[in-house]
Amino acid sequence: MKVLIIGGVAGGASAATRARRLSEDAEIVLIERGPDASFANCGLPYYVGGEIAKREKLLVVTPERMRERFNLDVRVRTLAESIDRTRKTVRLRDLSTGHEYDETYDKLILSPGAAPLRPPISGVDLSGIHTLRNLQDVDRIKERVDRGTQHVVVIGAGFIGLELVENFVRRGISTTVVELQNQVLPPLDREMTTPIAQQLAAKGVTLLLGDSAEAFEQSPEGIVVRLKSGRALPAQLVILGVGVRPESKLAADAGLEIGPRGGIRVNQQLQTADPDIYAVGDAIEVTDFVLGNATQVPLAGPANRQGRLAADHIFGREIRFRGTQGTAIVRVFELTAATTGASEKSLQRAGQAFRKVYIHPANHAGYFPGAQQMTLKLLFAPDTGRVLGAQAVGGEGVDKRIDVLAVAIQAGMTVYDLEESELAYAPQYGSAKDPVNMAGFVAAGLLRGDHPQLDVEKFLALPDDQRPFLLDVRTSEEYARGYIPGAINIPIDELRGRLRELPRDREVAVYCQVGQRGYLATRVLLQHGFAVANIGGGYKTYQLFQGA
Amino acid sequence: MKVLIIGGVAGGASAATRARRLSEDAEIVLIERGPDASFANCGLPYYVGGEIAKREKLLVVTPERMRERFNLDVRVRTLAESIDRTRKTVRLRDLSTGHEYDETYDKLILSPGAAPLRPPISGVDLSGIHTLRNLQDVDRIKERVDRGTQHVVVIGAGFIGLELVENFVRRGISTTVVELQNQVLPPLDREMTTPIAQQLAAKGVTLLLGDSAEAFEQSPEGIVVRLKSGRALPAQLVILGVGVRPESKLAADAGLEIGPRGGIRVNQQLQTADPDIYAVGDAIEVTDFVLGNATQVPLAGPANRQGRLAADHIFGREIRFRGTQGTAIVRVFELTAATTGASEKSLQRAGQAFRKVYIHPANHAGYFPGAQQMTLKLLFAPDTGRVLGAQAVGGEGVDKRIDVLAVAIQAGMTVYDLEESELAYAPQYGSAKDPVNMAGFVAAGLLRGDHPQLDVEKFLALPDDQRPFLLDVRTSEEYARGYIPGAINIPIDELRGRLRELPRDREVAVYCQVGQRGYLATRVLLQHGFAVANIGGGYKTYQLFQGA
Repeated sequence: MKVLIIGGVAGGASAATRARRLSEDAEIVLIERGPDASFANCGLPYYVGGEIAKREKLLVVTPERMRERFNLDVRVRTLAESIDRTRKTVRLRDLSTGHEYDETYDKLILSPGAAPLRPPISGVDLSGIHTLRNLQDVDRIKERVDRGTQHVVVIGAGFIGLELVENFVRRGISTTVVELQNQVLPPLDREMTTPIAQQLAAKGVTLLLGDSAEAFEQSPEGIVVRLKSGRALPAQLVILGVGVRPESKLAADAGLEIGPRGGIRVNQQLQTADPDIYAVGDAIEVTDFVLGNATQVPLAGPANRQGRLAADHIFGREIRFRGTQGTAIVRVFELTAATTGASEKSLQRAGQAFRKVYIHPANHAGYFPGAQQMTLKLLFAPDTGRVLGAQAVGGEGVDKRIDVLAVAIQAGMTVYDLEESELAYAPQYGSAKDPVNMAGFVAAGLLRGDHPQLDVEKFLALPDDQRPFLLDVRTSEEYARGYIPGAINIPIDELRGRLRELPRDREVAVYCQVGQRGYLATRVLLQHGFAVANIGGGYKTYQLFQGA
Repeated sequence: MKVLIIGGVAGGASAATRARRLSEDAEIVLIERGPDASFANCGLPYYVGGEIAKREKLLVVTPERMRERFNLDVRVRTLAESIDRTRKTVRLRDLSTGHEYDETYDKLILSPGAAPLRPPISGVDLSGIHTLRNLQDVDRIKERVDRGTQHVVVIGAGFIGLELVENFVRRGISTTVVELQNQVLPPLDREMTTPIAQQLAAKGVTLLLGDSAEAFEQSPEGIVVRLKSGRALPAQLVILGVGVRPESKLAADAGLEIGPRGGIRVNQQLQTADPDIYAVGDAIEVTDFVLGNATQVPLAGPANRQGRLAADHIFGREIRFRGTQGTAIVRVFELTAATTGASEKSLQRAGQAFRKVYIHPANHAGYFPGAQQMTLKLLFAPDTGRVLGAQAVGGEGVDKRIDVLAVAIQAGMTVYDLEESELAYAPQYGSAKDPVNMAGFVAAGLLRGDHPQLDVEKFLALPDDQRPFLLDVRTSEEYARGYIPGAINIPIDELRGRLRELPRDREVAVYCQVGQRGYLATRVLLQHGFAVANIGGGYKTYQLFQGA
């Protein structure tokens, strides 16, 4: 068996080492265009900022190690130019010598990755305008930063863009972010990114949402970025972080099927239209595990697993790739934002029914020092209560809750199951009622009809004359620090004695700070015959929707 | 509806507030023997050490707050003396006045908790010998510490015992721990506690395992603790942390059924033998979710959920308590130890078949600074691969993996599912192949027969002449720092060229540092026709079994 693998990073490297473990006899050839195999692409931004101090840390496995330990035929600086499916050969070019030759295969695995987009904007090829994909890119960016860069413009506020922003700020560089959408971190729902936008502002980053680059011009100080809004931003360095495009040309030229977003089509065994050719990683189209539709998910975790599974299938094992649920996380200075499963907007796009709740719990017991707050949004099916997606933003403990909910989604669990989850509690780590339990309680209560909920954005969208009577049940001190316009204040502890102050001929909307007292107030008022709904997630959720 | 609740901490307080949310009309009477309702029992040790600086932090909800916000009839310093099931009354005694009276109920919820054991040892009632259950206990302990205590002896190395130890050391007190078993943290398997024992030693704590107190004697300097081993330990303060006993006397006297371990028997609706009497929390017998047997699990999380569920059932909801899987966690100085589901010893006791793997991963990408190592042990069914239990010990990230695995156990997931789990990866939080995935890979590989595994303790138990040929595939530098006696060293990267140095007429046992290179070596040797097994978890697991 001869296995030829195109692409030596996440998916390709995983496939190669897995193939060797499955077969000592197989001939395994690993082709990589760049000089490095298997580097830490997710670490690149931190080398720019210096948090990862040594470049060699980014070289996860060297080609030498792959040869020695796994007996792989690793050929770096080698380009795959074309596939001849009939002869089962790939045309390769040695980029050092220019030598071209054909390599045969029994099974071919394509793991070419995805290339950063370079939008066709005037001046986009000027010196100083970079994308970030590999070590050579990061070398160029870092060199420019080390030489002294005063202003950076980052086009695109996605995960990689914001990771770079953090590192530029760390280097003391004045940083501006330009994002076409009206939010940072587009995979998340907009309101969940409000704390991130606030954090960026607090760190001195200029954030320009709903704007885009129209032209890049050379100037004596470097580059001028001209925006659609008319602004002109001076910079010595510009980063293009506007997305990636699957590197599917090799596959397309070989007549393999390509999806509408440019991803190589594969079946559940990761085979392309040609059963002897597999494809894995950022270059392929995958099935969204929750929504069931085809999508592109350029993430390292799935790429690694797909590489492993493709090798398994080649060596006769039964496999079935279950699709991808898009679990992702990013640190932005002191905050963490993470998501798993469907977002509210992806559910809306898919036309799928859902309900949602927001909670704002602390990561651990409030009585123990150092508790940090997070906001957790849970999306679930209105009929079965199946968990569809979750997002969280905050300090410590965000990653834990998203991982727990990622497994809950994988298992097809419901919000009723989350009520019962038995998570590790000691005051340093959680609460007797963990945020995951709390989200389950609120969501299950909603589905059971315990507490009608009014989503704050729906409340805000109502014309003034159709708004319910708005009741703030926080303390007078909290109320004095800010409230939703139109709200009157009756603290929860006085509510039972002041019911006659509330209208019986009009719906009442209740809110507190995070939703919990609002829930209790809703229960009290319901049982006293009022038409009432709780504004889910309270004033804090209102603030998220008010934006940064 | 009149609901009478005996016990105002975790389960009782949860039942009371839940009952109020479900019914504004109900009369809800909450009886608490002590002066405080709903205090933070899990925080008590940290008030002794000063990490929780203010006593009021420990008062989660005051009786006043319960009255105001939840309209509860809270009676502290009130003792429940007996139940008259026919008349449906409870005899109460006001401990402040001595006044006795009967209180009626429609539904009664018992949440009396569990009392720390005071073993019948000579001198156990001497001044300076304390247990820790409530704020009054902690006041007494803290007062003694504040007055100046040079030596403390802690009897019992369970969770609360070790939490107190950490806090005594924080106060600069010379601390000795005496534990009857041959390990600390008895709910964990012994080898998993080795790092904790080492950590205690590193912090200057004297740990005496397999020993016990036989007598306490007054001395001019305070107390002398006489041990079974003959040792005599001087102390000004002794803590008894040798376990708890369900407070089931009230229930037993009322003729309610009690289990063999002293817990009040309840059905899945948390009803005792009398359907109008519920019981929740540390006082009840619960079903082990994994093993299916009856057990006692004194933990705050389940107590809270049971209280909530009992109230639900009283107000007409369908509920079913699913049992307890015993998820627990403890911080011991810089280390964290946690467990969920069955342990190896509980599986052995139950006669249930299992397999196990050990891995020693970092909490996040090794190329990112600050990665900390942990040891993760996974127990699973040999036939289906269902996850039965997990334990972890190490630095950051232990809590996250145990919570993820707790949910996997709840969902009935298998080790094959863990291979596919999509967890949040950025270099600060995890790895593209998370420890949970890695545990799944190793376990699934074992079940698929990819790599025969020899458990290190089984290897060590073999007579010398029956031991396999022992091969260490680490580097020569690693080998030089220490190896399993009898091992010869062939580094993995030289293995393929040195196969003739290995015997073909004898089994070969391979190991490396953590198991991964050993696995590769096993695959290489298997395919070259050797009879080979990998020592799971490698040298690090060997060291765990060697003990502290």
